[in-house]
Amino acid sequence: MNLDAAKAALSHLDLDVNPASIKAKSRDFFWYSPVLKARLDHVTADFVVTPRTEAEVIEVLKVCHAHDVPVTTRGTGTGNYGQAMPLAGGCVMHLHKMNRIKDIQPGRVIVEPGALLKDIDEACAPHQELRMYSSTWATATIGGFVAGGSGGVGSVRWGGLRDLGNIIRLRVVTMEAEPRVLDFTGEEIHRISHAYGTNGIITELEMPLAPAYDWVQIFVTLDDFAAANRMAYDLAAEDGILIKLATVFEAPIAQDYFQRVAPHVGTGQAVVALMVAPHAMGGFLTFLARHPAQIIYRSDSTKWDREPGQIFEYCWNHTTLRAMKVDTSITYLQVGYGSDDPLPLVEEVRARFSPEVLQHVEVTRSGGRVAMGGLSLVKFTTEDRLDEIIRQHEEMGALIFNPHRYTLEEGGRQTVDLRQLEFKREADPKGLLNPGKMIAWDDPDWAYDRMYAWPGLRKAAE
Amino acid sequence: MNLDAAKAALSHLDLDVNPASIKAKSRDFFWYSPVLKARLDHVTADFVVTPRTEAEVIEVLKVCHAHDVPVTTRGTGTGNYGQAMPLAGGCVMHLHKMNRIKDIQPGRVIVEPGALLKDIDEACAPHQELRMYSSTWATATIGGFVAGGSGGVGSVRWGGLRDLGNIIRLRVVTMEAEPRVLDFTGEEIHRISHAYGTNGIITELEMPLAPAYDWVQIFVTLDDFAAANRMAYDLAAEDGILIKLATVFEAPIAQDYFQRVAPHVGTGQAVVALMVAPHAMGGFLTFLARHPAQIIYRSDSTKWDREPGQIFEYCWNHTTLRAMKVDTSITYLQVGYGSDDPLPLVEEVRARFSPEVLQHVEVTRSGGRVAMGGLSLVKFTTEDRLDEIIRQHEEMGALIFNPHRYTLEEGGRQTVDLRQLEFKREADPKGLLNPGKMIAWDDPDWAYDRMYAWPGLRKAAE
Ligand SMILES: Cc1cc2nc3c(=O)[nH]c(=O)nc-3n(C[C@H](O)[C@H](O)[C@H](O)COP(=O)(O)OP(=O)(O)OC[C@H]3O[C@@H](n4cnc5c(N)ncnc54)[C@H](O)[C@@H]3O)c2cc1C
Ligand SMILES: Cc1cc2nc3c(=O)[nH]c(=O)nc-3n(C[C@H](O)[C@H](O)[C@H](O)COP(=O)(O)OP(=O)(O)OC[C@H]3O[C@@H](n4cnc5c(N)ncnc54)[C@H](O)[C@@H]3O)c2cc1C
Repeated sequence: MNLDAAKAALSHLDLDVNPASIKAKSRDFFWYSPVLKARLDHVTADFVVTPRTEAEVIEVLKVCHAHDVPVTTRGTGTGNYGQAMPLAGGCVMHLHKMNRIKDIQPGRVIVEPGALLKDIDEACAPHQELRMYSSTWATATIGGFVAGGSGGVGSVRWGGLRDLGNIIRLRVVTMEAEPRVLDFTGEEIHRISHAYGTNGIITELEMPLAPAYDWVQIFVTLDDFAAANRMAYDLAAEDGILIKLATVFEAPIAQDYFQRVAPHVGTGQAVVALMVAPHAMGGFLTFLARHPAQIIYRSDSTKWDREPGQIFEYCWNHTTLRAMKVDTSITYLQVGYGSDDPLPLVEEVRARFSPEVLQHVEVTRSGGRVAMGGLSLVKFTTEDRLDEIIRQHEEMGALIFNPHRYTLEEGGRQTVDLRQLEFKREADPKGLLNPGKMIAWDDPDWAYDRMYAWPGLRKAAE
Repeated sequence: MNLDAAKAALSHLDLDVNPASIKAKSRDFFWYSPVLKARLDHVTADFVVTPRTEAEVIEVLKVCHAHDVPVTTRGTGTGNYGQAMPLAGGCVMHLHKMNRIKDIQPGRVIVEPGALLKDIDEACAPHQELRMYSSTWATATIGGFVAGGSGGVGSVRWGGLRDLGNIIRLRVVTMEAEPRVLDFTGEEIHRISHAYGTNGIITELEMPLAPAYDWVQIFVTLDDFAAANRMAYDLAAEDGILIKLATVFEAPIAQDYFQRVAPHVGTGQAVVALMVAPHAMGGFLTFLARHPAQIIYRSDSTKWDREPGQIFEYCWNHTTLRAMKVDTSITYLQVGYGSDDPLPLVEEVRARFSPEVLQHVEVTRSGGRVAMGGLSLVKFTTEDRLDEIIRQHEEMGALIFNPHRYTLEEGGRQTVDLRQLEFKREADPKGLLNPGKMIAWDDPDWAYDRMYAWPGLRKAAE
């Protein structure tokens, strides 16, 4: 790696060589995981470059390719698995200023990768909005969401980000001597979506839009977690009631971690957070009256002394954030309970692990059915105990997407994604894009019998 | 019944006393059923009145109540079970001129009952449209759809018309000495929806809207019916691919009954009709490439010498209409295959009855899952054989909604709807609204062991 030559060649661009700010731009929310925190805290790039156009992206890739400098792309660095962290140092390519919203049509929008989810929604208002967003809507980029996220607010209606139809087109620049620009639709989208920028850089996205509504944000309490879970599931199964979010919290998550909500929640009560379309409120209230549930907050009419703010910022991975702020020993797990009949499994897992693990359940859709996923809060003690909890979940039939790993495979289904790997061979032959994140590239025979530790990870300075 | 007094009292309104046009306005599409045709062909009212305002509706009801004249309400008379036919004569109240579209808001529209589905959609364009409509979109009224229909184009996304959230509010006038005007929301909606106007007259509706798109209308062929059914089911289960219609036709339905489609379909091939959102075409084509399916028509690009017209006018009960035009011995059945795992049952039924019964399957949603319903084409021979076919379907686990009956109960689940009955006691104490259509009112102990024959049915003139 010839850093000096690369920096010199890029000096006419927006280049940051200040160690403090480089360090800041080399980190994401990896510290959610005590496991990743112990391993990646020292990671930092050698320089940061902020291109503003596709032409500048091409220039950065070309120069870094010529000088063998690794390039790790950054949206706004809100990922939780160190996805945006430059394990081998080198260049962080920060795309947040490449943020134009290029075209809005019925059902679709064309954007640059650095556009914030929030800014896209605002540009598409009042009639349209993104189908789904991570709960980091206010701060995350669309490029980072597609390359590093999986779904979120809206997935209860539209399924996951990688489900067919939820990404229309991705424009991609390769890491070669002469970078190519490719437009991917159909099956090709999966080469590059959720690939952590390991095999190409997304420079333009075409995303589907949903109709925009003034979603009513609601908190509901029920005396019993199982009843709360049942209610949220059944609500999501009401085909005529349009909702955008349904999240269930076991007690005492809201009581202990949601300061402004806590005064309104009784001891032991479960809480459900919802976003309901205004014109669906009639159907929703009819539905709710059939359940032993109380509305404690609705954004279109309730006045609390201290407003709770955006309800989705209690959900998805914001739940973990709020818990960690109160109790630094908290971390989390990502659990798939499936879409066949998830309720009994959720209850079984809850009964077994509560309160060491507290249930935070997101209702989603998968394969046309209501599904449930957990972003369970875990009281962390040791890595061994964490691994044991994971193993036990798996034995009970739950699927774990381990958020305490920095590789694509370990955070997923622990198998090679051949489409991603094959495209990396073609688009990044030198292996310079976000190195260390794809086990299949570095160690095709890895057995997944322990945590993968990439040999190329730069050592911490003494 | 004092007809002369009633007519005199209503003579300042739009009153029709011409026998030929009264006869025409006393009929609907009951003749789809040879069973109903044999029993109801002679049915006719004594006069027709066409109110234009709610005040005039109240006047009609008040006068008819005073003079004991039965009132049967008519939208545009496209129902298939004689719903709008005045079994005891009396007054037909024709609402097609009470058709104002009063207010359009994001996600909702307020209309009068006589507005045509098509006219509502046109008024809500370009951003919004009704969630669902009967395939009689071009000719049917919204009041008739809500009082006499059950779902249709759009139900693959939104479920049935009576699912929570698919009707927001109904305004209802009662049949009393002093008619009351009531606004029904929530659970109360079910007192009056799909009640055939037997217990109140709807004078205003508030309906939810969906986003409007320029739906791409598509015909697809597959060599095998089971594969076609599987494809349609799986497509509806793709949460990210927005569709509005998915219909499957066993061979030789398209070959024999769809004149303009037939030349493009091979012998023995099954046909699937689809409406896909333009921005979902990418996802759809990706999906389709995974199936052994050929697109033979797409409205945004294919040019046939003879255009097929609106694709949904091949679907729902338009399939039956097209078949009857070619073969007058054809009638149909309404079959529920459920939402658990409908495919094997459809195939079993097909194998048993084809070609006497040909499968025409509509893909819908029910309870949050993909469901399948059949509007099967039946080669009619005798009433006994038809009843036998029905019994055999039921033995195989399929649900039959018998379209060869004119009562609410026999066309449904053969049980009293207590909400409807109780409201009729309150709102129509004299039993003057659309008499003969609610068995529970006339004969609470009816055993459903044979076809109900209402004793009050006026005899045919010699
Ligand atoms: C509080 C909190 C809540 C969260 N909630 C959710 C949630 O609900 N759902 C969810 O899916 N995630 C969630 N996340 C994770 C994360 O915030 C989202 O995935 C977010 O959308 C990432 O966007 P970003 O701009 O921060 O991406 P970054 O973190 O900057 O990048 C993410 C990955 O994408 C790559 N990348 C970025 N831009 C490009 C590009 N243009 N081309 C190629 N690769 C690129 C990066 O290299 C990195 O590997 C949450 C995180 C936090 C801290
Ligand atoms: C070719 C064809 C295809 C069809 N496809 C479908 C389909 O896809 N889905 C479906 O559900 N149906 C379908 N139908 C049945 C029918 O067309 C629809 O239900 C239609 O919406 C009825 O509307 P209408 O105005 O014709 O009602 P009408 O037939 O005039 O009335 C229907 C019933 O509602 C009552 N009624 C009408 N207005 C009021 C009111 N304001 N207050 C109280 N009661 C009232 C009438 O008394 C009658 O009992 C189809 C019929 C045909 C012939």
